[in-house]
Order: sequence, then structure tokens, then C-alpha cells
Amino acid sequence: MENMHVAVLLFEEFETLDVFGPVEILGRLRNEYGIRFYSLAGGDISNSHGVTIYTRKLQEIKAGVDIFLIPGGYGTRTEVANDPLIKAIREISLSSSYVLTVCTGTALLAKTGLLDNKKATTNKKAYDWVISHGKKVNWIQKARWVTDGKFYTSSGVSAGMDMTLDFLKDRHGIGTARQVADEIEYMWTEDPARDHFHKKRQANAHKS
Amino acid sequence: MENMHVAVLLFEEFETLDVFGPVEILGRLRNEYGIRFYSLAGGDISNSHGVTIYTRKLQEIKAGVDIFLIPGGYGTRTEVANDPLIKAIREISLSSSYVLTVCTGTALLAKTGLLDNKKATTNKKAYDWVISHGKKVNWIQKARWVTDGKFYTSSGVSAGMDMTLDFLKDRHGIGTARQVADEIEYMWTEDPARDHFHKKRQANAHKS
Repeated sequence: MENMHVAVLLFEEFETLDVFGPVEILGRLRNEYGIRFYSLAGGDISNSHGVTIYTRKLQEIKAGVDIFLIPGGYGTRTEVANDPLIKAIREISLSSSYVLTVCTGTALLAKTGLLDNKKATTNKKAYDWVISHGKKVNWIQKARWVTDGKFYTSSGVSAGMDMTLDFLKDRHGIGTARQVADEIEYMWTEDPARDHFHKKRQANAHKS
Repeated sequence: MENMHVAVLLFEEFETLDVFGPVEILGRLRNEYGIRFYSLAGGDISNSHGVTIYTRKLQEIKAGVDIFLIPGGYGTRTEVANDPLIKAIREISLSSSYVLTVCTGTALLAKTGLLDNKKATTNKKAYDWVISHGKKVNWIQKARWVTDGKFYTSSGVSAGMDMTLDFLKDRHGIGTARQVADEIEYMWTEDPARDHFHKKRQANAHKS
């Protein structure tokens, strides 16, 4: 199998684990996936966890990549209104083989319109905010992650790891996915319908 | 509570999630923990997952920090024989309030002798290699993580997240630790004795 180019989108105040959970899992298959980081303007991108990553410019990949990974984080609250970024995300997503979003990163993809009439999910804590940016999306509230064609969308933060393991399953088989989960001693939630945090959201809603 | 200085040790070929799992969890309490990255020589440190992080020099913190985090990764196979690094780890660990190791990072700490006659655990896949570097350590084979005084040592990769949540529990209470786990939609293994990957190691040992 050829080396697959994974482009990870970064923006100020990205969520650390949204990025590095999937990067750990794809990076384990080092001969299969080559990972690079991008942002709209390029250069150093930081978050309040003290993490700074050097990025290339998104325009370098406007013809698309094999896998386009869009994380969430507080920064999405600003970036969802960043029209040049949303335009770039739309262009790259259209021409990429797969698009994976984690947590509130789904809001950025929803904003492009590309999830309209498709199934998707997102973070449970910021659920109402995210779905307000994709009114034509078929939102699945109870799901650890959702796959619809080339689009993989996950619930909050850690759920991105479960989704990425499922992506490996779809491409390399369940054996490879389980092996990677074992190597990193991760208790993979293999069933996307098993979403404990959905229940917690419901419980909180009943309280308020 | 004052801002606690978290120093994360990096070296070439560190394991991505060993670092960024704990960083996500400590970083969530942004008013409590300030995270910085260090290496022996300073400058850019990279791994084969395509991740490059700028580091300060370890000697800047030889008087110790609040929390010293030592990740694992393939790089530990080289670094365990890097005497100046082991000396610096010993010096900083002695003068820091807490030392947290993830996965094969435990080998680096064991090599300093500071874990002698203390309880500790490590990665299940590289167990025999790690314990060879600390023959006087009281190794606990079946454990997701182990705490002994100021030393927290975890099993492989993802187990570092469970350990760091337990560290938050010890310092801020179970409510705070559970809240952080919920925020990142992480299914925290709260009981350190619940170690599924121990069983898998045993099963593999019986096969071979």
C-alpha cells in the first residue's frame, strides 16, 4: 500500500488530544501514514496547554490529500466565522479521499455545507453550539463516532481515538486496529453506538 | 492554589500520546498547571509521527519543578544509556515535588536508582526490557499505574492518562478528576488494579 498523506489542520487554541490521539494511532503505522501539520497562514500555532507546532500553509494542499484531519478546541468558536479558513476547508475536503473531524472540529466542516444531508456527530458538551452550524446535517446525538461515506466525525476529544481506530479497521481490518489499540494499551470502544457521554448529557439536561 | 510548573522531558523518538495525553489532562486546569517542554540540549525535538516540539534546556530546571513528566517511546532504548541525561533526570527528580512517568519512560527513572525499593509499573509490551534497568525496584506487573510517595508510574501509553487523572484526584479530589474525564469524554479506569493488558501479556507469554 502506498504512503498516505495525512494533513492535520491546526489553528490557535486547538485541543491537544483531538490532534495527538489520532496522530498517535495513524503514526503507529509509520510505513502507511505520513503526517504533516497545516494552518491557514502557516508558521507556529499554539494552544493554552503550552503546545506549539510549526505548520505549512493550507494552500499547499488545495488539490487534496489522502486524509484531512480537523480537530476541535476553543479556537473553533473564532474559526467558524473565519471565511477564508472555511473556504479552504471546503476546497481541501472536496478533493481529499477521507475527512476526519474530532469534537467541535465538526462545526468547521458542517459550516462548509459538505455534511448537509449526511450523518454526523460531535462533542456532547458543546452539542447545541455545533449543530447550530449545520442545520441540514442529519445529527446523530447518541454515537461515539459516525461514518458517512468519506466523512468520519467523532464525539468529544478522546472519541477521536476510537474513531481513528475504526478508520484503521475499515482500511486494514479489525486485526490491525485491535493490534494498534493493544500496543498503546487503549481500551477501544469498538461499537460506535456505545456512547456513555450521551447519557451524561441527557442527565444534565434533565437537571437544568 | 499557586500555578504549578509542569516540566515535560522530550527526547528524539518520544511517544506522542505519552506526552500529550497527560498534557491534555493537566492543561484542562489552565489556572493550576503551566506546561513547558525540555530536553538535554534544548531546541527542536521530533518523532516519527511527524511531531516537532521546541524545548528549553533541562539545566534551566536543575533546582526542580512541581511536576516532572517523563514519557516513553522508542527513544528510551537509546536514552537509557545516555549518562548525562540520566544524571539530569536524577537531579531534577530529587528536587521536584512529583515525578510522573509513562510507559517505557519508567526505564529512564529506574536507571537513576531513585525507584529502588519503591513500587512501580511500566508498559506491558516492553516489560522485561524496562525491569532490566531497575533490578531493585518492586515491580508491580498487574497495574494500570502505581503510586509510591511522589512517584507515579504508569503502564503503556494510554495508561498515562488514567494515571494523570488519578494525580488530579489526589491533589484536587475525585470530583475534579471525574469532571476532567467527562470533559474530554474519556472512559477513565479509576481502579489502578484493573489492567486488561496484563492479561494479554500473560496470554502471549503462554503462547510463546
